[in-house]
Amino acid sequence: MTTPADSTNRHDGAATGAAVVLERCDELATHSSLPDGLIERVYLSPEHTAVNALAAGWMRHAGMDTWQDAAGNQCGRLEGATSGLPALLLGSHLDTVPSAGRYDGILGVLTAIAVVERIAASGRSLPFALEVVAFGDEEGTRFGTALLGSRALAGTWLDAWWELTDEAGSTLHDAFVAFGLDPAAITSAARTSNDFVGYLETHIEQGPVLEDNGLPLGIVSSIAGARRFQITITGKAGHSGTPWTHRRDALAGASEAIVAIERLARDADLIATVGHLEVFPDAVNVIAGRAEFSLDLRGRFDADRDTAWQRIETLLEEICATRALHVAVHQTHSAPAAHCSDRLRGVIAAGIRATDGPDNWPEPLELLSMAGHDAMAVAHLTEIGMLFVRCAGGVSHHPDESVTEADVARALDAFEAAVLALAAEHPAVPQDPA
Amino acid sequence: MTTPADSTNRHDGAATGAAVVLERCDELATHSSLPDGLIERVYLSPEHTAVNALAAGWMRHAGMDTWQDAAGNQCGRLEGATSGLPALLLGSHLDTVPSAGRYDGILGVLTAIAVVERIAASGRSLPFALEVVAFGDEEGTRFGTALLGSRALAGTWLDAWWELTDEAGSTLHDAFVAFGLDPAAITSAARTSNDFVGYLETHIEQGPVLEDNGLPLGIVSSIAGARRFQITITGKAGHSGTPWTHRRDALAGASEAIVAIERLARDADLIATVGHLEVFPDAVNVIAGRAEFSLDLRGRFDADRDTAWQRIETLLEEICATRALHVAVHQTHSAPAAHCSDRLRGVIAAGIRATDGPDNWPEPLELLSMAGHDAMAVAHLTEIGMLFVRCAGGVSHHPDESVTEADVARALDAFEAAVLALAAEHPAVPQDPA
Repeated sequence: MTTPADSTNRHDGAATGAAVVLERCDELATHSSLPDGLIERVYLSPEHTAVNALAAGWMRHAGMDTWQDAAGNQCGRLEGATSGLPALLLGSHLDTVPSAGRYDGILGVLTAIAVVERIAASGRSLPFALEVVAFGDEEGTRFGTALLGSRALAGTWLDAWWELTDEAGSTLHDAFVAFGLDPAAITSAARTSNDFVGYLETHIEQGPVLEDNGLPLGIVSSIAGARRFQITITGKAGHSGTPWTHRRDALAGASEAIVAIERLARDADLIATVGHLEVFPDAVNVIAGRAEFSLDLRGRFDADRDTAWQRIETLLEEICATRALHVAVHQTHSAPAAHCSDRLRGVIAAGIRATDGPDNWPEPLELLSMAGHDAMAVAHLTEIGMLFVRCAGGVSHHPDESVTEADVARALDAFEAAVLALAAEHPAVPQDPA
Repeated sequence: MTTPADSTNRHDGAATGAAVVLERCDELATHSSLPDGLIERVYLSPEHTAVNALAAGWMRHAGMDTWQDAAGNQCGRLEGATSGLPALLLGSHLDTVPSAGRYDGILGVLTAIAVVERIAASGRSLPFALEVVAFGDEEGTRFGTALLGSRALAGTWLDAWWELTDEAGSTLHDAFVAFGLDPAAITSAARTSNDFVGYLETHIEQGPVLEDNGLPLGIVSSIAGARRFQITITGKAGHSGTPWTHRRDALAGASEAIVAIERLARDADLIATVGHLEVFPDAVNVIAGRAEFSLDLRGRFDADRDTAWQRIETLLEEICATRALHVAVHQTHSAPAAHCSDRLRGVIAAGIRATDGPDNWPEPLELLSMAGHDAMAVAHLTEIGMLFVRCAGGVSHHPDESVTEADVARALDAFEAAVLALAAEHPAVPQDPA
């Protein structure tokens, strides 16, 4: 998965270098609910407990005070020039999709910890505190609703979520209790705008743009907002010998819908993904009486996405009317596009420039993130900036997810330099008690 | 599910009447692996053991000697005029699909038992023995391969089946042992042509033809042969934000294939069903890396069906080539059309005529069965005949499966009359020791 560090790793051999970060990624990957080396680590699971404990240990080793917040996010803090300053928040998430890779989210958490460790070790005094957060839920694998961890921190938690259930039928409320958390205390996980000077996140690109351009690092301009839906098509189960005149095949209807959604989204320059589909009763010789599938719809502009969804709803109604099927749709997630602030884009650019000199590329590349990130939720509280790291083939959410040690070394250097660049241009923070 | 018996039930109130048969259907329905009144009863399960015991009790009550054969089929025998005569075999199956109805297969077993009880009680001496078989697997729900019970009896068991696995990973071999059967003894379940004078089966139609024609009963002319395939489309899992240029979405490919298969089958006057579909990793925000689905293909003529399959294979290759996907197909089941013999069609016709007088319809209706039946396997050994009973809406493989008590009463009378008609035209059986 990794290649040997090259000469660009300025911290070769240091405790906080790329090799250690990748070793930690490997160690976290061993905490999985799946056998055979496959990775799945969902919110409020025993694996969540295990990786929080590991992350807390690394945070303390980096010099931070640590705590797990009321939503199960693992947090750490290094004070700035004086105690109690607003913090620059650094972070990402430790949860995964099923059969995941080992870097999506995880690399961002470990980069943040490593950079705090470097700064602490350097003895530098910053005009803000540094906080690291390892969010417990970004993917939404377990409860179908994403960004639960970062939304708790952002104070945008919805009480309706308590009744969300996982595949085993446990509610989110039950899962909190089983994890040792108090649902009634959830508001204490919420932070305020005054707590932070900004949020910076490192993440693998999860797309092919950096690789296609031969660039290890890039700046995120904005994050496309996804809307997610659960679509249920109901027909009537029946024997597989039933004639066409009497069939109400929910899977045939769903298949037609999936093909039509794909065509419509392509034409509208949007991305649509049906990643989950379940058929009932799901037997070789029984016509499907019900098909349930997910739709994840995202694009550069929220308005285009919302217009396309209206057309998809009409399309679903038409297909189902023709087939004597019934369709029900339920939105499970909606996020507007989140824009990275000019200031923090500038800071990330300064960080990238610091790694290899500006001769490596005329100026750092800015890219749109089609993937959602914790930063979207944190944007509710404070301005956000993101550093993207090249990943092989643009592949993520797959065991083949891969980064090079050289790129990680550059990312560490750039992220550290970005933090220091922000510190340099921010001698006085709004609530600086000095 | 039932209506009160009408005056056509000649055995109203007798132990072997329609009301008792329907009560027994209800009792068998309580033996299920699913909660909430849903029915699922698969081969070699604890529920299989339970319903075999019930059927054996009813067989003995009807006057039969009983045994469970080496494949888990529950058998009973009533001797004819002399001991050891070849038998007329009557039967059907007791296993079900998931979320099944309570009559598919079951009604045929209980009709057979009730008719033997009537004949035994009448003191009639037949020129053949009567045997009843309750097959343990017709649907193929557990191991994906259908007719395991009847194929064991027909002597067409394949050793390759021992390695078939269920969803929990148990092999058929393991399941035999867990059920208390000896896999090495499977050949002892096989009967020979000399054992039987023929096979008669009662079954719900599982189609709308009888209902559409206002007829309670019908004669099966032949049984369409199904071929079943497991189709696996492999792409690459990836993040749901991945651009179209880099997507290899297995579910999008499968959906396009399902729609195309439906169109092709309709045009070719065949029935195609994709009843099972599974997606991996099956997450809202992950492009499907793999989609596995079943195809059940059947039609009036085997040659048309086989030609259509060749075209479907080409279609799958084309769709997958366009989408950079890989497709693998695996045939899990293949049966030729099975034709009911002139003699046994005549006997069934005579039985139907005996129920209500020929004035009820000019002549009994003959229909093609699009559903597969145990009779297909038994046809390897002896000639077959089938009686179809009207079912509401043509619905089967669904909890709404329904028959009327009046129709069941007619079916009992017709089936009994058919057996007696065969006895009447068969004064001397080939091996009659008299």
